[in-house]
Amino acid sequence: MKHYLSVNDIDSLPDWVEEAINLKKDPYQFEDLGKRKTLCLLFFNNSLRTRLSTQKAAMNLGMEVMVMNFGNEGWALEYGDGTIMDQGTSEHIKEAAQVVSQYCDIVALRAFAGLVDKAKDEAEEVINGFAKYASIPVVNMESSVGHPLQALADAITMAENKKKARPKVVLSWAPHPKALPHAVANSFVQMMKLQDAEFVITHPKGYELNPEITEGCQIEHDQQKALENADFVYVKNWSNYADYGKVVNKDLNWTMTEEKLGKAKFMHCLPVRRNIVVEDAVLDGTQSLVAEQAKNRIFSAQIVLKKILEQNK
Amino acid sequence: MKHYLSVNDIDSLPDWVEEAINLKKDPYQFEDLGKRKTLCLLFFNNSLRTRLSTQKAAMNLGMEVMVMNFGNEGWALEYGDGTIMDQGTSEHIKEAAQVVSQYCDIVALRAFAGLVDKAKDEAEEVINGFAKYASIPVVNMESSVGHPLQALADAITMAENKKKARPKVVLSWAPHPKALPHAVANSFVQMMKLQDAEFVITHPKGYELNPEITEGCQIEHDQQKALENADFVYVKNWSNYADYGKVVNKDLNWTMTEEKLGKAKFMHCLPVRRNIVVEDAVLDGTQSLVAEQAKNRIFSAQIVLKKILEQNK
Amino acid sequence: MKHYLSVNDIDSLPDWVEEAINLKKDPYQFEDLGKRKTLCLLFFNNSLRTRLSTQKAAMNLGMEVMVMNFGNEGWALEYGDGTIMDQGTSEHIKEAAQVVSQYCDIVALRAFAGLVDKAKDEAEEVINGFAKYASIPVVNMESSVGHPLQALADAITMAENKKKARPKVVLSWAPHPKALPHAVANSFVQMMKLQDAEFVITHPKGYELNPEITEGCQIEHDQQKALENADFVYVKNWSNYADYGKVVNKDLNWTMTEEKLGKAKFMHCLPVRRNIVVEDAVLDGTQSLVAEQAKNRIFSAQIVLKKILEQNK
Repeated sequence: MKHYLSVNDIDSLPDWVEEAINLKKDPYQFEDLGKRKTLCLLFFNNSLRTRLSTQKAAMNLGMEVMVMNFGNEGWALEYGDGTIMDQGTSEHIKEAAQVVSQYCDIVALRAFAGLVDKAKDEAEEVINGFAKYASIPVVNMESSVGHPLQALADAITMAENKKKARPKVVLSWAPHPKALPHAVANSFVQMMKLQDAEFVITHPKGYELNPEITEGCQIEHDQQKALENADFVYVKNWSNYADYGKVVNKDLNWTMTEEKLGKAKFMHCLPVRRNIVVEDAVLDGTQSLVAEQAKNRIFSAQIVLKKILEQNK
Repeated sequence: MKHYLSVNDIDSLPDWVEEAINLKKDPYQFEDLGKRKTLCLLFFNNSLRTRLSTQKAAMNLGMEVMVMNFGNEGWALEYGDGTIMDQGTSEHIKEAAQVVSQYCDIVALRAFAGLVDKAKDEAEEVINGFAKYASIPVVNMESSVGHPLQALADAITMAENKKKARPKVVLSWAPHPKALPHAVANSFVQMMKLQDAEFVITHPKGYELNPEITEGCQIEHDQQKALENADFVYVKNWSNYADYGKVVNKDLNWTMTEEKLGKAKFMHCLPVRRNIVVEDAVLDGTQSLVAEQAKNRIFSAQIVLKKILEQNK
Repeated sequence: MKHYLSVNDIDSLPDWVEEAINLKKDPYQFEDLGKRKTLCLLFFNNSLRTRLSTQKAAMNLGMEVMVMNFGNEGWALEYGDGTIMDQGTSEHIKEAAQVVSQYCDIVALRAFAGLVDKAKDEAEEVINGFAKYASIPVVNMESSVGHPLQALADAITMAENKKKARPKVVLSWAPHPKALPHAVANSFVQMMKLQDAEFVITHPKGYELNPEITEGCQIEHDQQKALENADFVYVKNWSNYADYGKVVNKDLNWTMTEEKLGKAKFMHCLPVRRNIVVEDAVLDGTQSLVAEQAKNRIFSAQIVLKKILEQNK
């Protein structure tokens, strides 16, 4: 692994999860590993959990952290090859990536999908541009198509809470007033493929995710049927993929309720719209794992940083 | 004290002031206390002094600091119970407070009064929401109704500069072109009640602060009379409280002048509008304590953080 | 040197360059020097390189760093003497500078030229105001008329790459769609005067820089002639100085090309507009020093901070 761009950069998910759970018991056991090493966090979009948890992870490893909001603190970037830069962009990603590489040892990036142009989003100009032109390792803090630090935190959370070797895990679409990216759902699906579980995706007809990502997954359009005997229910909205970036369904029958959840554990990456995505009773109940998922964001980031630091020693 | 939400969370003001003055002599004497502890500063509004002094205080104690501007870097928060979140807010304070609690050991917050809806401002949704839902101590870096780090810095400054055991202290209203919150004045009044002094509040008729806060205080509408033989004159504008948040008086006769000040020391929390709130001659003269007050913001924050760290050891 | 406001604050450029090159070999050799010292970076304008490289420099010296964006995080500042502050500005630079001086040991500032009012830009209210009223050393991270950390990094880069004792160095104007400040060009010219070289400035007629700065420099309006046998070609756009802040020429014949460059090394401070200022082939070629210049921003900042820390020990 040079970069951590997607969950497919994980060589063995069970090993990483075990190592992360071990890290969590004593987060400072490797605090010399990051000495004199600097992590730069570059945000092209808003962040709460990712901003704080990734900083905390780096500090636990003894790293220095520099945080920068690219939108309002830096320059508009150009991604095209051979562009005559006489318009709005001030700096080419080639220079930006090279320059950042001079000042830190690892760079982590957040750049959301625009949800307007599918081809452009899937090209992932920002993260792929940095991976191509930076001379240092790049970590994905949510790109157009993936959020692999979240998926790794989810895997850790399920490992800590599972009662059987092969749990039933359901990814259940939920309504939402705004158009949201597919990144969290994509990475969750990719991560589920890396471990042994009974995995079912449920969503309204027409809300299929990218078929290349869900290839081989069980898809069940009847939510009730999908949820039967579930051990973990991961609820998440995403906007339409076929009619790209559109909100074509806001059906509140898909909202997660205490009744539908049954005895399963409830998971969500946050932020979450209460009483739209999930009713209060679930979030405020004892089956909700959302705070544990948030906490595990520290350890998913820390294991990724640790592995990068170790291989570059 | 679990949280530091108002000056009323101080168990003994004289003891805290003495301890802060001792800290100031050797600010690094407790630099191991904050080792591996993280302070998160969350700003819903602008800040210069508070941002820098609170960071400095935490660093003096060996803490790590994470700073975040909630407005443009995070998500719009929802405060209502049972809300169906299909409008502009993306995250409920319950989740935000729980999540922040996973990543740090103390959270400090700034969220100003909106000055439109008195009941809403006095409910103090942000700071009270965090105090209710966070599992870690919360520090007030200026809320709708109080600015207790400023008031504690003011108490330290007066202790350092007083020439008699029971000085005369005057809180004198000043004109200002914009509507300002009552937070600084409120906390100053509450703090004055915690110590022995001759305390007088002076302001134009109709500019009464919240009577629950000023209960038992001497109020004198004749500024000249109020200022007689004063040792400390604390000048501050606030907008109207009865006609909530309105500027109904801009009378420059209330501006503080060298002549009115007499031999008293001049105090103001800053930022200050020159030649509106106070004339240049006062600010540039030798009786002004504003720089000392600003310096003592470090030690008021440091004593609060120290006490919280000690009780959670 | 109390402050580092311009390259003229350098007592001996060759000595500083040598010391910086030595620092670069072992950046942590003085990491105790900055212990318990805090650097505050105040940005009135955007920054990528300066933000990250100056933080890195401070960390290499063991300093703590506090970063603040004055525009959206602080208060609008007033600079006038005796102003009645009843308009948009909330805080006078006297107070702001005094206050910042309480919280840190060195303050570094960025405040670009507005390019509307020449006299106002040349008065350099922000940096000169801080230099006047702050009680701590002030470092220029690009002011209206100078960018001395960049020029020092450029001097280091030339020293590392020169093949003869007295190289030929050409500062060549380039076209640009937007009006840019003169700061980088000014400091480069001033820096070139501090060392032995054959130095030529080339630009279209009418694009003269401030004649007080270029006094004694060779100016050649024929770019081809200027570039003959050059060892280093520093390319940079600036807006018109006589017709202040205007873009009166966008002639792409001034764009730097591989052919024009010949065997010279190419330099630019970045960010750079590709195929307007310089063609891709130059930036992507082996004669480009732009990444090395960016890297040397760490060591120009570090040598400045080191010298300030040493004299204040």
